[in-house]
Amino acid sequence: MEHLTLLTDLYELTMMQGYFKTENNDTVVFDAFYRTNPSGGGYAVCAGLEQIIEYIKDLRFSEKDIAYLRGLGIFDEDFLKYLETFRFSGDIYAVPEGTVIFPREPLIKVIAPIMEAQLIETALLNIFNHQSLIATKAARVCYAAQGDGVMEFGLRRAQGPDAGVYGARAAVIGGCCGTSNVLCGQMFDVPVKGTHAHSWIMSFPDEYTAFQKYAELYPSACILLVDTYDTLKSGVPNAIRVFTEMRKAGIPLTFYGVRMDSGDLAYLSKLVRTMLDEAGFSDAVISASNDLDEYLIENLKAQGAKITSWGVGTNLITSKDCPAFGGVYKLAAIQSQTGEFLPKIKLSENTEKVTNPGNKTVYRIYEKESGKIKADLICLADETFDTSKDLRLFHSLETWKRTTLKGGTYTMRELLVPIFQNGACVYQSPSVMDIQKYCDSEKETLWNETKRFANPHEVYVDLSDELFDMKRRILNEYNQ
Amino acid sequence: MEHLTLLTDLYELTMMQGYFKTENNDTVVFDAFYRTNPSGGGYAVCAGLEQIIEYIKDLRFSEKDIAYLRGLGIFDEDFLKYLETFRFSGDIYAVPEGTVIFPREPLIKVIAPIMEAQLIETALLNIFNHQSLIATKAARVCYAAQGDGVMEFGLRRAQGPDAGVYGARAAVIGGCCGTSNVLCGQMFDVPVKGTHAHSWIMSFPDEYTAFQKYAELYPSACILLVDTYDTLKSGVPNAIRVFTEMRKAGIPLTFYGVRMDSGDLAYLSKLVRTMLDEAGFSDAVISASNDLDEYLIENLKAQGAKITSWGVGTNLITSKDCPAFGGVYKLAAIQSQTGEFLPKIKLSENTEKVTNPGNKTVYRIYEKESGKIKADLICLADETFDTSKDLRLFHSLETWKRTTLKGGTYTMRELLVPIFQNGACVYQSPSVMDIQKYCDSEKETLWNETKRFANPHEVYVDLSDELFDMKRRILNEYNQ
Repeated sequence: MEHLTLLTDLYELTMMQGYFKTENNDTVVFDAFYRTNPSGGGYAVCAGLEQIIEYIKDLRFSEKDIAYLRGLGIFDEDFLKYLETFRFSGDIYAVPEGTVIFPREPLIKVIAPIMEAQLIETALLNIFNHQSLIATKAARVCYAAQGDGVMEFGLRRAQGPDAGVYGARAAVIGGCCGTSNVLCGQMFDVPVKGTHAHSWIMSFPDEYTAFQKYAELYPSACILLVDTYDTLKSGVPNAIRVFTEMRKAGIPLTFYGVRMDSGDLAYLSKLVRTMLDEAGFSDAVISASNDLDEYLIENLKAQGAKITSWGVGTNLITSKDCPAFGGVYKLAAIQSQTGEFLPKIKLSENTEKVTNPGNKTVYRIYEKESGKIKADLICLADETFDTSKDLRLFHSLETWKRTTLKGGTYTMRELLVPIFQNGACVYQSPSVMDIQKYCDSEKETLWNETKRFANPHEVYVDLSDELFDMKRRILNEYNQ
Repeated sequence: MEHLTLLTDLYELTMMQGYFKTENNDTVVFDAFYRTNPSGGGYAVCAGLEQIIEYIKDLRFSEKDIAYLRGLGIFDEDFLKYLETFRFSGDIYAVPEGTVIFPREPLIKVIAPIMEAQLIETALLNIFNHQSLIATKAARVCYAAQGDGVMEFGLRRAQGPDAGVYGARAAVIGGCCGTSNVLCGQMFDVPVKGTHAHSWIMSFPDEYTAFQKYAELYPSACILLVDTYDTLKSGVPNAIRVFTEMRKAGIPLTFYGVRMDSGDLAYLSKLVRTMLDEAGFSDAVISASNDLDEYLIENLKAQGAKITSWGVGTNLITSKDCPAFGGVYKLAAIQSQTGEFLPKIKLSENTEKVTNPGNKTVYRIYEKESGKIKADLICLADETFDTSKDLRLFHSLETWKRTTLKGGTYTMRELLVPIFQNGACVYQSPSVMDIQKYCDSEKETLWNETKRFANPHEVYVDLSDELFDMKRRILNEYNQ
C-alpha cells in the first residue's frame, strides 16, 4: 500500500464534507493518547512516527480517489473540487519514537483546521497503535531475555505484509537484535538473520549431509537446526560431528551452534549444553524458538535453561495476548475568532474516559539523583515550571494521593516535540537502530518495579493545578 | 507495500543459495495447511488467494533488491546473477477463497523446483494466514448476528495499513455487509459505510444543532450518534426531534436511526426502541458498536437487545481472542529423476504434528439429501472414487472411529483447483462480493452444530486407505 489518503473511515470524509458545507473550518486541537498499557504492563513504547510523517507528507487526493468518492454518490462537486487541492496545513507535536509512555498523556497533538485534523484520525491511529503495540511487546520480551539476543521471526503469522514489515521495525525499536524479515531489513537497514528450516534437512538424504552442506556454505554463521528427527539422538550428535570436522579442517568457528524449535526447551537445552561442552564446543550458541513469549522466556530462565539466543515469532508480531493498542484521538479544544483555545471535553459515565480539555503538553519529571522517572505531568501548553522550586503532584482521579518534590531534586523534560509546523515537516526521523539505542536509554529511566510483568508499579501521570481546575470547572458547567 | 519479493524470511534465501550451490533444484511438493480452527471453532474460511496470485505474478528481484542482498555479504555473485532472471515456473493448486475449511487438509499445494517453492513460503503463509483468520472471525460474528447487518469498523486498531485493508476485504468475504475503510472500498468495490463521530457533535454549540446539520446534509442515510452527552436524556430526544422535523418537512425517512457506542447496550436499546416507537419511528434503525465480538452479540441477542445493525471494530479486525491463524507449509514429496513423487514426512513427538506425505489432493463429501458436509477426504492426487459405491471413512489418528457411506447417498467435490500451471496463472479471482455470496453458500453446507461457539461438532478430515498405508509404511521405516 503506497498511497494512503483513502486509508480512512468513511465518516471522516462525511464529517469533512459536513464541515465544508457548514463553513466551519475552525482550528482545533486533537490529542492522541491511550488508556491502558498493553498486556497489563507498567509502560508502553511509542513507535510509528516516521510512517505517520510520510503519510501526512503524501496526503493528497488523486484523480482516481476523487472519481471513486464521486461514485459513492454522497459527495457534492464543490467538496470534491476542494479535495483536489487538499494538503495538510497544520501543526503536529509528538513524542519521539522509542520513548516510554504512560496512559492518558497526549502523545500526538494535532492543531489544524478541523477538516484536516478530522481526516487524519484513522490512519494516524492505525500506524501509531500498531507499531506502539509491537514495540511495547518487544521491550517486554527483551526484558525477559535479560540481555540475550532476541530475534523477530514472525512474518508468516503477521496480520498481512505491513504488519510483518512495520511490526519487525517496531520490534527492533523495542529491543530485538534483528529480524528474519528481509524486506524490513532492506527498508530500514536493520540486521536480518536466519539459517535454514526443516525442509532443508528433509531435502537431503540424511541430516548429517544436510548439516555438512550448510556448514560448507555458511561457515561463519553456522547455526544448525537439530530437531527435524530427534534432537538428542540425531540432531546434536550430527551437529557435533560437523563442528568437529570444521575444527579439524581449520575452519574458524566464530559464530556457530544449534537451534531447537520443539520439545521441552528447559530440559533439552541443559542436555544439549552438556553434550556440546563435553565435545569441546563450550562457545557454541544454543538458540531456541517455538511459541515463545515474555512469560515463557522468563520461566525458562527461572528453570536454568541454557539458551542464549531467542527467536520469537507469532506471540511478538501479533502481540498475541493483547493484539490491539487502544490509542484514541479526541477533540480537546477549538480556537475562537480571537485565537484563544476554548477547551472541549468528552463526557462518559466512566470517569477514566472523561477526556482532558485544552491545548496541552506533557512533561516528564525525573529524580535528579537516579535519573529515574518520578511522574509525568500533563499541563496547558503555555505553563512554565521552575525546577528549583517545590512541585506538588497529585493523582488526577484519586486526588488524595499526593506528593511534593523538593526544588532542586528533580528535572523536567517536555515530551512533545514539533513535527509539522504550518504543514511543513520540521522533524528528521532518526534511523531505526538509533531509535533502538534511544529506547534502550529510555528503558533505563524506568524502575524495575515498573518493568516487571506481574502487578507492575504504576507511573503516575498527573495534571497540573491549572489543568485540573479547568477540567473541574467545565465538568461543573455540564452538571448544572 | 507494492513490491513484495523480499517479503520473506532470510532463511528462505540462504536455503535457496544452498540448493543453488549444491545443484539441487528438484521439483518438490509443499502443502499449506493448518492444525487448529481459530477461537475454538468448528471450521475456518479461507481467504487471500487473490493477493497470493498477485504476489506470485509480480515475483522478481529488482536491481535494488539484488544490490541489497549483495550488501549482506552472504550471497555469491553466481547466485545473485541467477536471481536476476528468477520467475516462478511451477504449479499451484488452491482451495477457492470463501470455502469453509478444516484442519490438516492441504489448502494450497505448490509443485515447483525447490528453490522457487522454498522462496514463496513466507509471503504465501503471511497472506493466507491473515485473511483466513479475519474471514473466519467475520463468519463467526455474522453467525451471532443472525442475519442482522454487521459492519467492519476496525481500521484504527488494525495491525498496520494492510491489516486494515485486507482485513476488511476478508471480513466482507466472511459475511460483513460493508466496511468503514474507504481504501478497501476503492480497491475491492465493496460497500463503505459510516456517519459521524463524537467530535462532530462536539464541534457544534449543542447536540441538537449537530444532528440537524447532519440530517440536512445526509437525509437518505441519517444515523445519529446519540451517546456523546447522555443517550436517554439528550441523544435520543434530540434525534427524535430531528426525525420529526424531517417528517414534517416532507423529507422521506428511508434509512435513518441512531447509533450507540457506549453503555449497557441491552438495557439502553430496549428503552431507545420504545422511545422511537412511541414517537412514531418504528422503522428507525438501532445500531450499536463498542468492543463487540461474536460472544457479546450472541449474548445481547439472548437478552433481547433491540439492535438490528452492528459495527464491529477491534475484536474483528485483529481477531482479538486468537490473533494468528496457524497455517504452515511443509515439504510433502520430492520428484525423482523418473518423475515419480517420493513421499517425505516431518516427524514430531506430537502425533498431530506428523505431516501427511505425498502428492495429495482433498475431496469434500456431501450428504446427497441435505447437501451438508459429511467429511473431507485427503488422498493421493491420482486416486479416483466412484460415488455409486460404498465409501469407508476412518479417523486418521483415532482409527477406531469409522463409518461407511452407502453408494449413491453422497457426492464428492475436489477442493483444490489449478491456480498456476508452469508459472502461468490459469485462474481468475471472482469479485469480493461474489466470493461473499459463494461463502454464504459454503456456510450453508455446515451443520449448525459445527457453527456454534461452544464445543462445536468436529467435521472429520480422513485419509484415504492408500494414503494412510503409505504414511504408516514410512513411519515404520523411520522407527526401525
